[in-house]
Amino acid sequence: MNTFGDLFRLTTFGESHGTAIGGVIDGCPSRLTIDMELLQTDLRRRRGEDMSFVSSRAQSEKDEVEFLSGVLDGVSEGTPIAFLIRNSDARSSDYETLRSVLRPGHADEAYLLKYGIRDHRGGGRSSARETIARVVGGSIAKQLLRAHGMSLEARVVEVGGKPYPSSEATDLLAGCAREGDSVGGVVELLIQGMAAGVGEPLFDKLQAVLASALMSIPAAKGFEYGSGFAAAKMRGSESNKIDDGISGGISTGADIRCRVAFKPTPSIHKPQTMRVIDADGRVTEQQITLQGRHDVCVALRAPVVVEAMAAMAIVNLINKHNNDSQK
Amino acid sequence: MNTFGDLFRLTTFGESHGTAIGGVIDGCPSRLTIDMELLQTDLRRRRGEDMSFVSSRAQSEKDEVEFLSGVLDGVSEGTPIAFLIRNSDARSSDYETLRSVLRPGHADEAYLLKYGIRDHRGGGRSSARETIARVVGGSIAKQLLRAHGMSLEARVVEVGGKPYPSSEATDLLAGCAREGDSVGGVVELLIQGMAAGVGEPLFDKLQAVLASALMSIPAAKGFEYGSGFAAAKMRGSESNKIDDGISGGISTGADIRCRVAFKPTPSIHKPQTMRVIDADGRVTEQQITLQGRHDVCVALRAPVVVEAMAAMAIVNLINKHNNDSQK
Amino acid sequence: MNTFGDLFRLTTFGESHGTAIGGVIDGCPSRLTIDMELLQTDLRRRRGEDMSFVSSRAQSEKDEVEFLSGVLDGVSEGTPIAFLIRNSDARSSDYETLRSVLRPGHADEAYLLKYGIRDHRGGGRSSARETIARVVGGSIAKQLLRAHGMSLEARVVEVGGKPYPSSEATDLLAGCAREGDSVGGVVELLIQGMAAGVGEPLFDKLQAVLASALMSIPAAKGFEYGSGFAAAKMRGSESNKIDDGISGGISTGADIRCRVAFKPTPSIHKPQTMRVIDADGRVTEQQITLQGRHDVCVALRAPVVVEAMAAMAIVNLINKHNNDSQK
Amino acid sequence: MNTFGDLFRLTTFGESHGTAIGGVIDGCPSRLTIDMELLQTDLRRRRGEDMSFVSSRAQSEKDEVEFLSGVLDGVSEGTPIAFLIRNSDARSSDYETLRSVLRPGHADEAYLLKYGIRDHRGGGRSSARETIARVVGGSIAKQLLRAHGMSLEARVVEVGGKPYPSSEATDLLAGCAREGDSVGGVVELLIQGMAAGVGEPLFDKLQAVLASALMSIPAAKGFEYGSGFAAAKMRGSESNKIDDGISGGISTGADIRCRVAFKPTPSIHKPQTMRVIDADGRVTEQQITLQGRHDVCVALRAPVVVEAMAAMAIVNLINKHNNDSQK
Repeated sequence: MNTFGDLFRLTTFGESHGTAIGGVIDGCPSRLTIDMELLQTDLRRRRGEDMSFVSSRAQSEKDEVEFLSGVLDGVSEGTPIAFLIRNSDARSSDYETLRSVLRPGHADEAYLLKYGIRDHRGGGRSSARETIARVVGGSIAKQLLRAHGMSLEARVVEVGGKPYPSSEATDLLAGCAREGDSVGGVVELLIQGMAAGVGEPLFDKLQAVLASALMSIPAAKGFEYGSGFAAAKMRGSESNKIDDGISGGISTGADIRCRVAFKPTPSIHKPQTMRVIDADGRVTEQQITLQGRHDVCVALRAPVVVEAMAAMAIVNLINKHNNDSQK
Repeated sequence: MNTFGDLFRLTTFGESHGTAIGGVIDGCPSRLTIDMELLQTDLRRRRGEDMSFVSSRAQSEKDEVEFLSGVLDGVSEGTPIAFLIRNSDARSSDYETLRSVLRPGHADEAYLLKYGIRDHRGGGRSSARETIARVVGGSIAKQLLRAHGMSLEARVVEVGGKPYPSSEATDLLAGCAREGDSVGGVVELLIQGMAAGVGEPLFDKLQAVLASALMSIPAAKGFEYGSGFAAAKMRGSESNKIDDGISGGISTGADIRCRVAFKPTPSIHKPQTMRVIDADGRVTEQQITLQGRHDVCVALRAPVVVEAMAAMAIVNLINKHNNDSQK
Repeated sequence: MNTFGDLFRLTTFGESHGTAIGGVIDGCPSRLTIDMELLQTDLRRRRGEDMSFVSSRAQSEKDEVEFLSGVLDGVSEGTPIAFLIRNSDARSSDYETLRSVLRPGHADEAYLLKYGIRDHRGGGRSSARETIARVVGGSIAKQLLRAHGMSLEARVVEVGGKPYPSSEATDLLAGCAREGDSVGGVVELLIQGMAAGVGEPLFDKLQAVLASALMSIPAAKGFEYGSGFAAAKMRGSESNKIDDGISGGISTGADIRCRVAFKPTPSIHKPQTMRVIDADGRVTEQQITLQGRHDVCVALRAPVVVEAMAAMAIVNLINKHNNDSQK
Repeated sequence: MNTFGDLFRLTTFGESHGTAIGGVIDGCPSRLTIDMELLQTDLRRRRGEDMSFVSSRAQSEKDEVEFLSGVLDGVSEGTPIAFLIRNSDARSSDYETLRSVLRPGHADEAYLLKYGIRDHRGGGRSSARETIARVVGGSIAKQLLRAHGMSLEARVVEVGGKPYPSSEATDLLAGCAREGDSVGGVVELLIQGMAAGVGEPLFDKLQAVLASALMSIPAAKGFEYGSGFAAAKMRGSESNKIDDGISGGISTGADIRCRVAFKPTPSIHKPQTMRVIDADGRVTEQQITLQGRHDVCVALRAPVVVEAMAAMAIVNLINKHNNDSQK
């Protein structure tokens, strides 16, 4: 339930404003020299360091990763790699007023429906902060793929309907920041050097596993690969000429392109009508303006998370592929 | 690998032109009176009976389902439900000329890369015929959901970029049929009466599980739910007002809409450049015109498969949800 | 639930007196030439052909295995291998009198508690007939292991406390047959040529996976490997000198010996006190003598099932082991 | 691989002499008030506090459990429960001399075979210290079972072939302690108040899942339940009168008894012949006497671990059982 993958597994834990965020990577082969520099770069990309329009909390968190097990002198031992990031800058007081408020666009009410209990401080598990653990797991997965000659690179290609980067997009972002509003975006992932024969023919098709991995990222609303939704408008004589990198759920060896649509972050500073539960469980609607520090466009920091999830998905399928055929 | 789901599982088997297609449903609770009429209706929808622009092979197959176990006097026993559909109308001779041909847009070459061996007769596992087993499993899953007050209904909303049904779309289909070409389409799924609290907060978010289920259908190229790709163009102040039925990966109880983009079926009757492998393994490119009986628009028969996959995905998550909270 | 294994999976189905027994093997690599002779030999061993003290039903069943998919010209395709054995000689009439009787030592009442419904004809899923599917899956797993130089051989070493084979054991069996009684036994498995490094250090230790596989065989009551229960009486200075073939859950490369204790088959022909449920659900106790054809000692036919389960367990762990270390 | 269970999961991490030992519990329902006193009692039992013949390291470790997530004000939130125990008293220097020594009866060489790399400090993952995480997970599982009226109680019943407790057993233990030797033992588990209908009929039989859980405990060599190995000597007419609590893999509601045989701890202080690898990879055999602090009889501290593993196994099967039948 909080584990991604089977042969290469990431199990994550931690609430946004609890003690710590962390995870356990299981199935990393032994004798991988972990590239700590790449890991730090990936974490910096997730924080959006030096990036405009990013929450100041994100940028001020240090995200110091402590490895608790599985790594000896920088080399993987084959045993589970546990890691921990303490929550150093969690201003829970910012959230005190939210104790009874169900924020629109957030998972507050859904958690209540599911568990009959809710951590009001910053969204609990549903916070974007949870993606740190994904980035750590993904960074190691990318290193495993790199050893096989594969690379994954994701970037924002659209913000609020405008191509990105462009001065139109920057203007749009600045406008949203001024108004206390937010905006959506699209991230594109390019997989190069993909090994052929990866992916299972029926249910664990490469595109299905990628879709699941990427649609599990907070705020993702849509997924497509190759010609994607445009293929629905094509003729077969046209579409047959395209090698999208996946055929029958199996990689062909050609490059693969995926696109993920992200909705605007629901945390905005404009007054909104919200449902409020009082001590007796009575629900009323009230006009409320949220405080706190938030992103203008959550897609801006998403590329490294997209890479991470895709990389872990592919490592899993490659590990399965190793047993496909008698030598 | 050929199993979908964990608490409600469908394991499928069978090649397009082998002896039989079938599956095993595991995790169906006991004491469900199986609605055989709904099952037959669903199979008829998949075959596209009385539908225009559908392969005559599909329509002539009888799809007589034989239940081998798990059902006693029409009631589920709690034990695995195995079923079988014999391949009665498989004209393998149609495919004899394909022994050395790797058809464009098909999985022929991918299978070869993966397994070092290939069943040339009609695509083996990658044939659309494999979806029969999905429809049987899905029909039973829909019956389980119906008992909880949920319904799933999918329909084609777009063909080749034209709204469907419409006379434009019909013209387009007729044109493709005449030219031996094919065309893509979009299917929309509406889930009503959805129970709240279903879906796992992190990796098995309801949208991720639906995405995986639906992107595993042959020819699917894209998935979106709710505002989908349009959300990437929205402002937060606008998007926060929408209840898409899923929040933080968990169902809210509101209706859910998903859309799946299908590419045109790659089987067309126009001359195409194809890779051909001769007896010595040498590959040449040749201009070839395929024979056989094929669909003009694979999306037309996809709605019942979309319902099936979504239903099985939801039953799995509901079974998990039963253990979410101490009573 | 009815699936064994993850990377090499056997899913089984079928009730003892239903239409058919069968299974689906998923994860068998492509390009294995299936040794049908070994498979037939294994099925004959399970039937106890030409063996004394074995149920005449077992011996008269033909167990003709029909392969439905996954095998082309005797070679595995990498796709799921489905197989079917029709129940040709099921005298359900023998069981008609059992409709209301809960047989002692059988799972009749347990099924009722679990599912609220019960197939009274010959024990449903809990019949020893279910082991046919295990033998088919295991035979293919043994062939995969053979290709790696491993062999598994199981034999009965004890019957009713007497060494087997011996004239004492034969006398005991003959006595039980005369009296309509049954008797227990012990099966020993020897694994030779075992690859080193197989098994997971924590929960999926080689001995834990073998224990689970072998304790899942009907009538198994105990499992031990190497020095087993005798080790509980030893000193460390003595026990340290033994290489049992497993260390810390991982194979060392030395031979492995396991022993499984089987209870007597509960089907006997002596009068017994049984619980009987009438049409109104009232339970009474009655003195009843069962009819039907049954084994005197179920352990006699168990060795090939023990081999099968162990072989599938080991193939799974070997497939995992392939990803243990960076090359 | 380092995860136990599926619906109630424990993922563990940590090397014996690394930074920390810990785990993540996933699938614990929300709204369970965690009984921290029971947890501390269980950890004290594992440490063998105030127990004779127990390693002084074990007793001096404080095992202070830090909960990192999933618990708010002592109540479970439904989110993953991560916990950590720092290794405060790890004298790695004791192990420096072991850098090149493969200790007999330990997993040293097996790890090397598996991973091509080895943590020489105290056995890495294969140390008994790893069981702390099992005890934490098991303590929470026992609390869930208690809420259903079930209890699990394990105790040592035999040491070195002598009944325990008894003055013979105490003499034997004292003798071993004096000589620097160790001795094996047997632990018996009693499950009371067991719910009926729990366990899966085929491969995940209750006894198979218990066997796997208990055989995964370090030093376990054998498992039996109910009449166990004695059943192999019985007649059916005798064995049919026994209700062992499990029938056809499914619980009947009667009490269940299991027994686990533990070998002597391999860490002894007598001179032993060992394999030694020098810097160039050359292996010689040498007479060596190990130092360090170790248990005389590892079975003495095992009962709480046996309870833990059995409890987690049963919670998993109960969660599955919730979906067995239509209401």
